[in-house]
Amino acid sequence: MNHRINLARLKGDIEELGRIGRDPAGGVTRPSFSQADLEARAWLKGKIEEAELAYRLDGAGNMFGRIDGQGKTIMVGSHIDTVVNGGMFDGSAGVLAGLECLRTIKESGLKISRPLELASFTDEEGNLVGDFLGSRAFIGRLNKDLLEKGLTQFGRPLKDVLKRTEFTIETILGAHRTSPEIETYLELHIEQGPVLETEDIPIGIVSGIAGKHYRWCSFLGTVSHAGTTPLELRQDAFLGLADFALKSTQHVARNYYGSMVTVGKVHVMPGTFSIVPGQADFSFEFRSQAKETLEALERELFALAKDIASTRGLTFVSKIIDETEPVSIPPRLTDLLKAESEKLGYPYMLLPSGAGHDAQILAEKADVAMIFIPSPDGVSHSPQEAVRWEDLEKGANLLLQALIRLAE
Amino acid sequence: MNHRINLARLKGDIEELGRIGRDPAGGVTRPSFSQADLEARAWLKGKIEEAELAYRLDGAGNMFGRIDGQGKTIMVGSHIDTVVNGGMFDGSAGVLAGLECLRTIKESGLKISRPLELASFTDEEGNLVGDFLGSRAFIGRLNKDLLEKGLTQFGRPLKDVLKRTEFTIETILGAHRTSPEIETYLELHIEQGPVLETEDIPIGIVSGIAGKHYRWCSFLGTVSHAGTTPLELRQDAFLGLADFALKSTQHVARNYYGSMVTVGKVHVMPGTFSIVPGQADFSFEFRSQAKETLEALERELFALAKDIASTRGLTFVSKIIDETEPVSIPPRLTDLLKAESEKLGYPYMLLPSGAGHDAQILAEKADVAMIFIPSPDGVSHSPQEAVRWEDLEKGANLLLQALIRLAE
Repeated sequence: MNHRINLARLKGDIEELGRIGRDPAGGVTRPSFSQADLEARAWLKGKIEEAELAYRLDGAGNMFGRIDGQGKTIMVGSHIDTVVNGGMFDGSAGVLAGLECLRTIKESGLKISRPLELASFTDEEGNLVGDFLGSRAFIGRLNKDLLEKGLTQFGRPLKDVLKRTEFTIETILGAHRTSPEIETYLELHIEQGPVLETEDIPIGIVSGIAGKHYRWCSFLGTVSHAGTTPLELRQDAFLGLADFALKSTQHVARNYYGSMVTVGKVHVMPGTFSIVPGQADFSFEFRSQAKETLEALERELFALAKDIASTRGLTFVSKIIDETEPVSIPPRLTDLLKAESEKLGYPYMLLPSGAGHDAQILAEKADVAMIFIPSPDGVSHSPQEAVRWEDLEKGANLLLQALIRLAE
Repeated sequence: MNHRINLARLKGDIEELGRIGRDPAGGVTRPSFSQADLEARAWLKGKIEEAELAYRLDGAGNMFGRIDGQGKTIMVGSHIDTVVNGGMFDGSAGVLAGLECLRTIKESGLKISRPLELASFTDEEGNLVGDFLGSRAFIGRLNKDLLEKGLTQFGRPLKDVLKRTEFTIETILGAHRTSPEIETYLELHIEQGPVLETEDIPIGIVSGIAGKHYRWCSFLGTVSHAGTTPLELRQDAFLGLADFALKSTQHVARNYYGSMVTVGKVHVMPGTFSIVPGQADFSFEFRSQAKETLEALERELFALAKDIASTRGLTFVSKIIDETEPVSIPPRLTDLLKAESEKLGYPYMLLPSGAGHDAQILAEKADVAMIFIPSPDGVSHSPQEAVRWEDLEKGANLLLQALIRLAE
């Protein structure tokens, strides 16, 4: 018998949840532990109970709905928090597709031997103190100092924000003690990029989650008068940055296809007409699926920066802001997803995930796999974030088949 | 008889004036009509009167000291206002060298037939509303609207600042009615660039004052996720700017030697890690001694910007902020300065002025010429601004000889 999710029911859930935290700018603003998030949590709890899943909440506010069984748990999840003025699909599509799958399995009367659990992780978006608070708490990888001293993106200490909840820094740090052993974690997510849409393919099977390297960098030169300093006598810090941004992009595009490099934030000083910049500060990041590539990029790109500085009479300095390692997806899971896509008749492609997801955190304790569905125009973290419902249906059906295979 | 200025007296004056408006950061902060400037004005008035020059003040606060004579006036001048945290030589060296020259002529008993006049112009630095308020008022080229509606760089309406003075917007607009006819205007100034020091030459005879073209520009692209958007699918506005900054600099350096191009201010949006910039705003300016070069640069550089935008899937937009025409120095004046330098045995070179000066404004009504002396390390508008006293002595002696020749 071919089991299929109920798109109308899933679509209804996504639209209902998407109305909670609707902001005046037409987006969804639902950071974890905001009033809107507390309302969304109550709604999700109701949905889990209505589906007759065993509801559980851990000390970090992670929410679960379980179908019990024997052995290690097969988990499906994502998050329902959003960025400020975000959309209604990033995270929510994965949680509600997971809910729909468990509901479908429950209703089907299928014999499932392994425990199946839905998870909705707290603060994936990092509005509190750092990304992935909930999934980090779930695996017991949180820094006590950060929780005690860190300020939320709204400038308040975490413990003040927790006052409106039943959680404390202690319950968050202890949350992992109630986590079941997870064998496999599956997550469906919108792609947040343009590849599937460009290739016109409804299903992306994630081949690996990129590791990343973030630095805050500066070229230092000499401030001089833009009217009186000949071009050949300048030590223009901004031209150093311009040269580095172009050459580092060319280097990655030519030699490390699929890896990413980005200058996202720029601050030039003194920053006015008539003055040649003496300092250019900028964010510099690169990402790759392979540890060796990340290491090669670190060597080659910063050697390039120093070369450019030396050629232009500048100084290059940098400090590391964040580093994460790439996550590989076990072939047994990509093979399973490929086989099930073929059985369903869904076109698919393998593609890397450049963005971070809760799956990346869970990978320390479990095998993980991810299914992407296309993001129209590649947009996410925006009120314009969207899905095509037929793509979501395909993604959720593939998720359902994979869960059934894994839990039988 | 060989007339020479008195360096000790000139140095004493510069050091005395340099103590007025001394700021906690070790520089001079003396914007026009600040308390420090009012004090400096009282000091300069005393010096003019002490030298027995005929003191006069116009409706824009321009200060004059005159030795009367027949026919059109030979004027020597500069300004005593400074930028915030500036130095003690930019402007002041020219006013006080001019004062020293007139004092020397007065004392020498030389017969001078033409009227000789020292001028100290208000707000050359543009701390009030636009550069060159005083010299523009002197020639009657001020915009009433700007005076009435413009805010000073400290955010106040001009008329509020004028309350602590005897001037009003009406007296400023009427100032030119008391201006004498000027035949020739000479100005000594620090170079504010590195050329004379690099060439180890004490005297620069200015061959022309650059015209400039200032625009506020933007490359517009598409905001996207830096982890999920492959390099080849990005419309990265910052890379458009980087490409344009490098190529426009190369174009000018290769084809228009001596002209300048600068990106001084940069604002990238949204401006964060993980996001490919969708917009890059920047100041773009170019300067040249020749009107035809300025026109060619305007055509070629903005065509280049549009080419880059089109290649990269971006849009380029810009608006004009300011334009000034180049000023040529009449050969009779450069020849005079060359001949007098040779007689004095001073090495000199011809060089263009990239910076704007009151001379540029006066050029509409008079022949103008300028003498530069070296700026150690090319520094100006900074507490580190300096001169070598022997260079200043040479510059002032050349100014003296030129004034004697012009006024005989």
